[in-house]
Amino acid sequence: MITLTSDFGLKDPYVAEMKGVILTINPKATLIDITHQIEKFNIRAAAFVLASAAPYFPDGTVHVAIVDPGVGTDRRSIIIKTKKDYFVGPDNGILILASRNQTIQHIYKLTNPKYMLPKISETFHGRDIFAPAAAYLDGGVNPEDFGPEIDDPVTPKFAKVKISEGSLTGEVLDVDGFGNLITNINKKDAAGMEGKTLNIELACATLKIPFGKTYASAKPKEPILLIGSHGFLELALNQASAAEKFHEKAGDKIKVSVA
Amino acid sequence: MITLTSDFGLKDPYVAEMKGVILTINPKATLIDITHQIEKFNIRAAAFVLASAAPYFPDGTVHVAIVDPGVGTDRRSIIIKTKKDYFVGPDNGILILASRNQTIQHIYKLTNPKYMLPKISETFHGRDIFAPAAAYLDGGVNPEDFGPEIDDPVTPKFAKVKISEGSLTGEVLDVDGFGNLITNINKKDAAGMEGKTLNIELACATLKIPFGKTYASAKPKEPILLIGSHGFLELALNQASAAEKFHEKAGDKIKVSVA
Amino acid sequence: MITLTSDFGLKDPYVAEMKGVILTINPKATLIDITHQIEKFNIRAAAFVLASAAPYFPDGTVHVAIVDPGVGTDRRSIIIKTKKDYFVGPDNGILILASRNQTIQHIYKLTNPKYMLPKISETFHGRDIFAPAAAYLDGGVNPEDFGPEIDDPVTPKFAKVKISEGSLTGEVLDVDGFGNLITNINKKDAAGMEGKTLNIELACATLKIPFGKTYASAKPKEPILLIGSHGFLELALNQASAAEKFHEKAGDKIKVSVA
Repeated sequence: MITLTSDFGLKDPYVAEMKGVILTINPKATLIDITHQIEKFNIRAAAFVLASAAPYFPDGTVHVAIVDPGVGTDRRSIIIKTKKDYFVGPDNGILILASRNQTIQHIYKLTNPKYMLPKISETFHGRDIFAPAAAYLDGGVNPEDFGPEIDDPVTPKFAKVKISEGSLTGEVLDVDGFGNLITNINKKDAAGMEGKTLNIELACATLKIPFGKTYASAKPKEPILLIGSHGFLELALNQASAAEKFHEKAGDKIKVSVA
Repeated sequence: MITLTSDFGLKDPYVAEMKGVILTINPKATLIDITHQIEKFNIRAAAFVLASAAPYFPDGTVHVAIVDPGVGTDRRSIIIKTKKDYFVGPDNGILILASRNQTIQHIYKLTNPKYMLPKISETFHGRDIFAPAAAYLDGGVNPEDFGPEIDDPVTPKFAKVKISEGSLTGEVLDVDGFGNLITNINKKDAAGMEGKTLNIELACATLKIPFGKTYASAKPKEPILLIGSHGFLELALNQASAAEKFHEKAGDKIKVSVA
Repeated sequence: MITLTSDFGLKDPYVAEMKGVILTINPKATLIDITHQIEKFNIRAAAFVLASAAPYFPDGTVHVAIVDPGVGTDRRSIIIKTKKDYFVGPDNGILILASRNQTIQHIYKLTNPKYMLPKISETFHGRDIFAPAAAYLDGGVNPEDFGPEIDDPVTPKFAKVKISEGSLTGEVLDVDGFGNLITNINKKDAAGMEGKTLNIELACATLKIPFGKTYASAKPKEPILLIGSHGFLELALNQASAAEKFHEKAGDKIKVSVA
């Protein structure tokens, strides 16, 4: 099974070209779209969406994720093998949240031309490099056959939560369709805080908000903190948009401590 | 075969998580999206779209449909077995139009935890309850194994057409991408009216409109009534938007009689 | 394998109805969406997208493409057999670019009711005629069994590049999600121009632009000509929208010569 995540949108032929390439190499592959509507060039949002969806797929799934502003430069192409799955994409941090959740075992640089299209464009490595890699990997080729092992993947700051003196400093990973602010602080980071009231420092406001379990545990339009269905700390309003109310967007800082 | 209908949109990971859950339980399932772009919380539009598409799928298809503003409350989760297919979703009327068209045989409450994910979130029953139910049902589990039979499904008013003294009072189920007003009045309700001129009472206008067969039987921008490709009475303009011209939207009343 | 291209959008049940019809006739078909977000009634854009994606699918793929403002009139329904694939759709030019790239062998009119749905609507031949044809064709029915051979397919002007005294006159086929202007001038037409500076005449501007290979070979926001990943000449800005800067849209003329 192969999943696909990108910022390509659904209007242009780009996603279909990747699928055609995969099915030509590996006609039995099952292809599932995670989404192609990541905001253009927003690596952070793609990393979050991939980390949310990956745990629900069968063991051994190959996840291809492409938000790739550096296509054609010297940024590396990589395969990450975790205890559960494989991740394929540019080495710009897009794969990091999802693969760390599953414990990274090995990372390989994609350099073997045997597993690329014969002709590589300068503008579309999704089709010419990542799609073939996924097709061969899903078809049984060993990850170490794609290129040399590396141990220094790019780890952007959105993947790092700062812990100091009982406070956590993270950032907004993504704003979902309901306006919920999804942070990069995960369940483990926030252990011991659940059920308490927290101090929250945003760019434009400092607030005291209860850390509950359901949206409905706040009154309508009142704020609530909870671990969302994706495993990350989320700042939400019950039946309204926290993003609008607090003027927050992906990338904004958030500092959290027990009140 | 399993179809999926929801208001989840395509930007967030929610639909992919449902698919991952289904394919983990039932790796051979064929998954077809009906749509995930139902207007948020619009049960009526989802009911219409599902009723339109279901007849074209093979017998025995499992249709999952989720527009679920009551998630986490005491609204029931149900499976409807019809003479042709299975329908899985919340008991809020979303399944009613499609399943009545196929003759309802049995309705079961989804209560057996054996066929749910081990951990049920308060916010996403699509992934934790409905997706597993569809996967097991498609995999051959008997519908009566999911929970007790019930006989009082929620039947919202959009599913009821009032017939009195030769007039039909219904409502606009959905406005399609072309601006056509699709009502809840079906071909059977309107038997005997075809080919005649009808009196149409809308919120803001009373009109006489011919009941024809094709959009092109009206002059450009002129109104026409016809039974659409979905089997419901439709008020359209030839090559223009009836919704815009008559200021109508989903949920508005429409009264019809022979002029 | 069957691909689907249309202007139906993803909100309404139309695409799902086509898939249901195909899978009822041919349960083993693999279905891949190219896109359903072609601008409504824009045959030119659909022709381009189909021509871009088709080469990447396995030999023998059946491509169904429907942008069909003439549905219900006397426009013909056709199957084109090329050296590589099959193309199914209305005879309005939508199939012409893609099938000519693969060398057309035979064209058949779709007239045999045996391979249509029993009931043909006046408004939705995608579901009632083209989807069944694709399902049977993919299932092994010979193309000549669908109807008589013809040799005069509709060939719209967007498929024709005018060559005279060293200049090429074409038009903008499509504007992609990045604002790149993709023309109908292909790699072969432009042979001998690569690497040079070209005179470009647009509706509102005459420019000298280098014919390079990558977006990044121009300075940020500066124009560049290149053969895009689809094989057509493309006028782009590095990291910005050429469509906005030059006020160009699909259908606009473009004249090209060596400076």
